[in-house]
Amino acid sequence: MQRIPTTEVSSHVGERVRVMGWLHSLRQLGGINFLVIRDGWSIVQAVAETEAELAPLREREAGVESVVALEGRVVSEPQAPGGIELHDLRIEVITPVTEVPPVSLNKRKITANITTVLDHAVVTNRHPVRRAILRLGAGAMAGFRSTLVAKGFTEIQTPKIVASATESGATVFKLDYFGRPAYLAQSPQFYKQIMVGIFERVFEVGPVFRAEPHDTARHLNEYVSLDVEFGFIENHFTVMALLRDVIAGILTTFSEHYTAELKLLQVKMPTIAQEVPHIHFSDAQELIFRRYSTDVRGEPDLSPQDERWLGEWAQQEFGSDFLFVTGFPMRKRPFYTHPDPERPEYSNSFDLLFRGTELVTGGQRLHRYDDYLAALEKANLPLEPFESYLEAFKYGMPPHGGFAIGLERLLMQLIGVPNVKLVATFPRDMTRLTP
Amino acid sequence: MQRIPTTEVSSHVGERVRVMGWLHSLRQLGGINFLVIRDGWSIVQAVAETEAELAPLREREAGVESVVALEGRVVSEPQAPGGIELHDLRIEVITPVTEVPPVSLNKRKITANITTVLDHAVVTNRHPVRRAILRLGAGAMAGFRSTLVAKGFTEIQTPKIVASATESGATVFKLDYFGRPAYLAQSPQFYKQIMVGIFERVFEVGPVFRAEPHDTARHLNEYVSLDVEFGFIENHFTVMALLRDVIAGILTTFSEHYTAELKLLQVKMPTIAQEVPHIHFSDAQELIFRRYSTDVRGEPDLSPQDERWLGEWAQQEFGSDFLFVTGFPMRKRPFYTHPDPERPEYSNSFDLLFRGTELVTGGQRLHRYDDYLAALEKANLPLEPFESYLEAFKYGMPPHGGFAIGLERLLMQLIGVPNVKLVATFPRDMTRLTP
Repeated sequence: MQRIPTTEVSSHVGERVRVMGWLHSLRQLGGINFLVIRDGWSIVQAVAETEAELAPLREREAGVESVVALEGRVVSEPQAPGGIELHDLRIEVITPVTEVPPVSLNKRKITANITTVLDHAVVTNRHPVRRAILRLGAGAMAGFRSTLVAKGFTEIQTPKIVASATESGATVFKLDYFGRPAYLAQSPQFYKQIMVGIFERVFEVGPVFRAEPHDTARHLNEYVSLDVEFGFIENHFTVMALLRDVIAGILTTFSEHYTAELKLLQVKMPTIAQEVPHIHFSDAQELIFRRYSTDVRGEPDLSPQDERWLGEWAQQEFGSDFLFVTGFPMRKRPFYTHPDPERPEYSNSFDLLFRGTELVTGGQRLHRYDDYLAALEKANLPLEPFESYLEAFKYGMPPHGGFAIGLERLLMQLIGVPNVKLVATFPRDMTRLTP
Repeated sequence: MQRIPTTEVSSHVGERVRVMGWLHSLRQLGGINFLVIRDGWSIVQAVAETEAELAPLREREAGVESVVALEGRVVSEPQAPGGIELHDLRIEVITPVTEVPPVSLNKRKITANITTVLDHAVVTNRHPVRRAILRLGAGAMAGFRSTLVAKGFTEIQTPKIVASATESGATVFKLDYFGRPAYLAQSPQFYKQIMVGIFERVFEVGPVFRAEPHDTARHLNEYVSLDVEFGFIENHFTVMALLRDVIAGILTTFSEHYTAELKLLQVKMPTIAQEVPHIHFSDAQELIFRRYSTDVRGEPDLSPQDERWLGEWAQQEFGSDFLFVTGFPMRKRPFYTHPDPERPEYSNSFDLLFRGTELVTGGQRLHRYDDYLAALEKANLPLEPFESYLEAFKYGMPPHGGFAIGLERLLMQLIGVPNVKLVATFPRDMTRLTP
């Protein structure tokens, strides 16, 4: 008999079907044995009314997480998950498991502490809740790509081993490249800008590496970055409009194809307006001063508290989960940032806040060769490591800009998980290199 | 006036339109100035019948690669590229370029030598031929993903910084991870297998890193790998059937959405039969002995010459560009390879040859915990570095397998480029770390 996925069992009521997967749980209740089989997509309940049906499990001492094939008759049962269960079972053990997993996978919640969860991520990720989080990650990538492809963007893959530590502050990992020093790219920033000269509109989904020596609930030393860059923009508002559409595309993908995951994770889905409210950095500081009686005017950046206040204001004033803050001071932004032509101490850059926390950073970049020479000199940076990057500008670049969304941060904020390590598949932090 | 992409100009004959892009070429022929504008998608020709129309270029000494906006009336002209050209021009210079590019971008072919081409890849990649190659790369990724998503596969992103040099022969890059040694993943092999325990069917598109000290026309030290792994297979023939569908999906994507690129690159598109011919490794050696009078029987692997002969045979015998060779000897395959249950000196693995060259390697993996313990012992490998990997098998894994397609190798073989570095966006080799 041909195997069917657990998600299709409910359309075969009255028929015998064959499912395959992991023995998710096995419980006795009032003399009846309830089995739950988990495959790659969902779960299905099966009921063994006789001990004989369970004999194949007993003989091989096969416990939970054993890999099994199970045939049974599909019966409507409103009490069962999904409203159906399997009766009159024929069980076949494919791979027996005799040891109890280090993290319990068949409780509604994961009860182990975070260290155990992460040490055994190989197993923990099988838990339906963990799996739903990771699956939403796949959905975010899919929604990101489909939105951009529809707008004429081309996918790129840029080198992760680079010759020099380039961008401003971020610390980089150093490696031995055939006897020469090399580094891991802390962002595809330079390459995605260069690629605007080739395809005009580009995006990349790939790993970025940050050797920042911080071990916090918001830091990962390797994460997945959803990067966008495109040319012939008016200014950073063109970039913000695209970002709005990309976020909307991701949310739509979730709503259309990931309803089971959203439900399991009890995600409070945001809506994003066609026109997301925006406020200039200096006005935001004024607002905080007037509304919250805290004087942050003159600070070069927003603090987490500032972001929470602004998020609260956006919610109360516009009923919006999202808020753009524009025009961050130039002095805190990297050298390639385009200044505001009217007020050159401010930049044509933005942050997108989501429920009071920064989710995305982006902006317009410099595009004239001479502006780069001046910006590097002002930043006291040597020209030589930037030679190839500068070549793109020497031979003509249009006004352009872009943004980067951290995949794990997006998931963390959307799902409401307190620690970014709990939404990463196999997180890397200062002390964690396995699994 | 709203800008339109060059690809849409032909549907506006008789109207005035605005295009933006790079000044691809500017030539005088019989007193008339022909301009070609290149944007992110294609090119369009424009004709300046008066010097006054060119004044904005002349004033700023704007040569080729200058970024411009150009308005003109669309006129049918069978001789022009795409059958149309623009007249009565209004030109606006956005970013003037005064220096001549290091590689000529407006000749039909790139004439520079390979070192110059690669040193200036930032600019060279703008050449329509290079750009078409890179765009096909995006198409391959898209076709790969869409085929797999339709079959219930989930996209994953696995860590690239790993704790130990794991897989068999391949040399790895070492890096400094907060004072500890760490390595760059030379494949997502272990992680994609682990993820079969979570999603059953997974794929990944991402960078892999090989510190192999070979500088050849077929080697890259960083490349893009299209990885697949899935569970509940019968044996390697299940994997081969999926690979066939994935290749077919990529080819269909090319034919449907990349016709301009295929035409420009004069790609001789292959067809792939529903049933790709296959031959067992030992039979392949017998065939070479009988047909080509060369005795390679007993050799543990196929040589490039063997592959060419087999490709020729597949073409003559089956009219097929593709041939599966199955059952490579266990002794040349990595420790996780599943043996042929009938003839355990051979493996349940395969290579897919395309036009006489290996394109993809794959196979069935071991799935029982005890088999892994035995295989590691046989390979004289310690258990400790594999602890997390082994945990997946300890807690139940189904029969599974997969394959990996090297994106650049696929492009090289399909397009018929002699050097893999010429199809990589920014290649990394033993001496090349920039651009």
